[in-house]
Amino acid sequence: MSEFDVKDHPHRRYNPLTGDWVLVSPHRAKRPWQGQVEAPATDDIPHYDSSCFLCPGNKRITGDINPNYSKPFVFTNDFAALHQDTPAASRNDDGLFVLESERGTSRVVCYSPDHSLTMPELSNAQIAAVIHEWTAQYRELSQQYAWVQVFENKGAINGCSNPHPHGQIWACSAVPTLPAKTDESQRQYLAEHGKNLLLTYVERELADGARTVVENEHWIVVVPYWASWPFETLLLPKTHVTRMEELSPAQQQALADILKQLTIRYDNLFQCAFPYSMGWHVAPYTAQYQAASARAHWLMHCHFYPPLLRSATVKKFMVGYEMMAETQRDMTPEQAAERLRQQSPIHYKSVQK
Amino acid sequence: MSEFDVKDHPHRRYNPLTGDWVLVSPHRAKRPWQGQVEAPATDDIPHYDSSCFLCPGNKRITGDINPNYSKPFVFTNDFAALHQDTPAASRNDDGLFVLESERGTSRVVCYSPDHSLTMPELSNAQIAAVIHEWTAQYRELSQQYAWVQVFENKGAINGCSNPHPHGQIWACSAVPTLPAKTDESQRQYLAEHGKNLLLTYVERELADGARTVVENEHWIVVVPYWASWPFETLLLPKTHVTRMEELSPAQQQALADILKQLTIRYDNLFQCAFPYSMGWHVAPYTAQYQAASARAHWLMHCHFYPPLLRSATVKKFMVGYEMMAETQRDMTPEQAAERLRQQSPIHYKSVQK
Ligand SMILES: O=P(O)(O)O[C@H]1O[C@H](CO)[C@@H](O)[C@H](O)[C@H]1O
Ligand SMILES: O=P(O)(O)O[C@H]1O[C@H](CO)[C@@H](O)[C@H](O)[C@H]1O
Repeated sequence: MSEFDVKDHPHRRYNPLTGDWVLVSPHRAKRPWQGQVEAPATDDIPHYDSSCFLCPGNKRITGDINPNYSKPFVFTNDFAALHQDTPAASRNDDGLFVLESERGTSRVVCYSPDHSLTMPELSNAQIAAVIHEWTAQYRELSQQYAWVQVFENKGAINGCSNPHPHGQIWACSAVPTLPAKTDESQRQYLAEHGKNLLLTYVERELADGARTVVENEHWIVVVPYWASWPFETLLLPKTHVTRMEELSPAQQQALADILKQLTIRYDNLFQCAFPYSMGWHVAPYTAQYQAASARAHWLMHCHFYPPLLRSATVKKFMVGYEMMAETQRDMTPEQAAERLRQQSPIHYKSVQK
Repeated sequence: MSEFDVKDHPHRRYNPLTGDWVLVSPHRAKRPWQGQVEAPATDDIPHYDSSCFLCPGNKRITGDINPNYSKPFVFTNDFAALHQDTPAASRNDDGLFVLESERGTSRVVCYSPDHSLTMPELSNAQIAAVIHEWTAQYRELSQQYAWVQVFENKGAINGCSNPHPHGQIWACSAVPTLPAKTDESQRQYLAEHGKNLLLTYVERELADGARTVVENEHWIVVVPYWASWPFETLLLPKTHVTRMEELSPAQQQALADILKQLTIRYDNLFQCAFPYSMGWHVAPYTAQYQAASARAHWLMHCHFYPPLLRSATVKKFMVGYEMMAETQRDMTPEQAAERLRQQSPIHYKSVQK
């Protein structure tokens, strides 16, 4: 029998943040695809769209009129999944019928008044303005809620109903399922190893390089060793930072730079406005985490989960085995990182011009 | 402040099989949809398709020729995610770079030679033949593997590349992430409550009825209290059965009947070949579960995860908040169960004829 080769042989890798495993089948990318092909995202988007409910000056479904904003603009979602004034309730019947009422809020963050732009096409200063707005939102919402989820859905293929550059912020009273796991995993790792889980991971990835996509003085982006999505990435600070409010001005500037560098490479991979879900995980705002020392186990980080697998129009379907048993991926994280790393740092649209 | 109303107010429900919570926002179904709309599935499929790699007598990509089968036909996937002869390997570096090689196999199960049919259009006898084949596969594969995952991806929207009625079976050496959790949850529930988790749940649902979709003498289908997908269902036996091989002939017949009843209602809901991922969870085949008494905590069950939300062409996107924080649903499980329960027991296509 031959030697085990990570590039050739099916294996499982462990995600230390969630405790889940992922099945890696490197040879599967070779199979032909006869399934669903998506419509390509159009590159031809106007700077202003009179039917867009996010463009400056337009009327929303509620009748509210958007201001003529020039910086990031935030408003409460007209169809919020969470409300501030939900009555309290809690039931636990037999450990089988368990329910808690939930309070929260859901906001929309428009990144730019220009309807046609996406993150990689914003200037560093414009991305920095988004980072400032996120930071202000964390400051405000953390007064009232234990968890503040900053995220972005990008691309129609990814469930985004409007190309206008925007993200969302949902805040809630309970720490949701996934960040609660991440919190617990980081706590246990520190207790067992005496080291910060993700900071140790950053050191190891910096020394290795095989999974690095881009880095700068303050940040690194890797395809994590345990990535689920084909081109999933994890954006991490190089020093111990647990929340966005702790970032120095230099770290904020460098964050704007790395977000642009990453999203340019994403767009260049398949020469399209690369779709993804992106989201930040920072230390929860529960009372017990008020002291910085209580957050020693945390490192803030940002996940990018892009749905594409083979091209701008063929995505990875997380169905069947993935839903019933375990996530499965069709190439190694190292192969994905190499492809992203090799992309030009110049956006394909500016080359075409 | 008003009283908490489960039909109106955002709340979270707990999934006792996985330990995950789901955010329920009953009012969200009212929001307008401006996002991606899928192509409707075509009803016009021929009985035989010369380009289909599953039709009897056709040549597959490997050059193998399918037999002229009349009963369910099983073969090893030409692009299997798992192989029987993968060399052993196991690494654990710092608890961060953790890898295990994995052995297994991946098979395709054609339900019928007729390219145009789907589960609800098969006769009870034809579905019973599929159940017999599943049972034979469990018997064979359990000799070598700890986990045997029987599942089906149905519909192009759900990543299925071929409408020919078929499912898959992936078998592997390790119990995968999700069934490992389910196993552990059932074990703990028995230890703490002295009762079988899912059998207790069945009794409670039989007495209630609010989440029941269909039932017969031996089986019940509910939209589980903790459902993630809008029209997710859970198919459960009414007595203690841990694996498919334990079913009596009467239970097998009744299983064929309930599978047909459920999938007819699914198709009738949006008058289309209703897409889903379906999969069985049975007690693992690890050595410690050989004695029936060691499987006292288990109840075999089948999950249906359909992607549709509003119509045959608008699906629920599990993106953004769902990927980063917690699954969110736009109607209560009780509302979904009521809609499915009200569907006619006669398939819409046979009414049209
Ligand atoms: O092997 P298939 O059916 O072509 O592929 C489909 O099912 C597999 C198992 O659920 C998934 O891993 C793939 O992403 C999906 O496209
Ligand atoms: O509110 P949106 O952006 O219209 O909706 C989108 O994002 C939400 C939050 O991630 C998801 O729950 C929806 O399924 C998705 O379509």
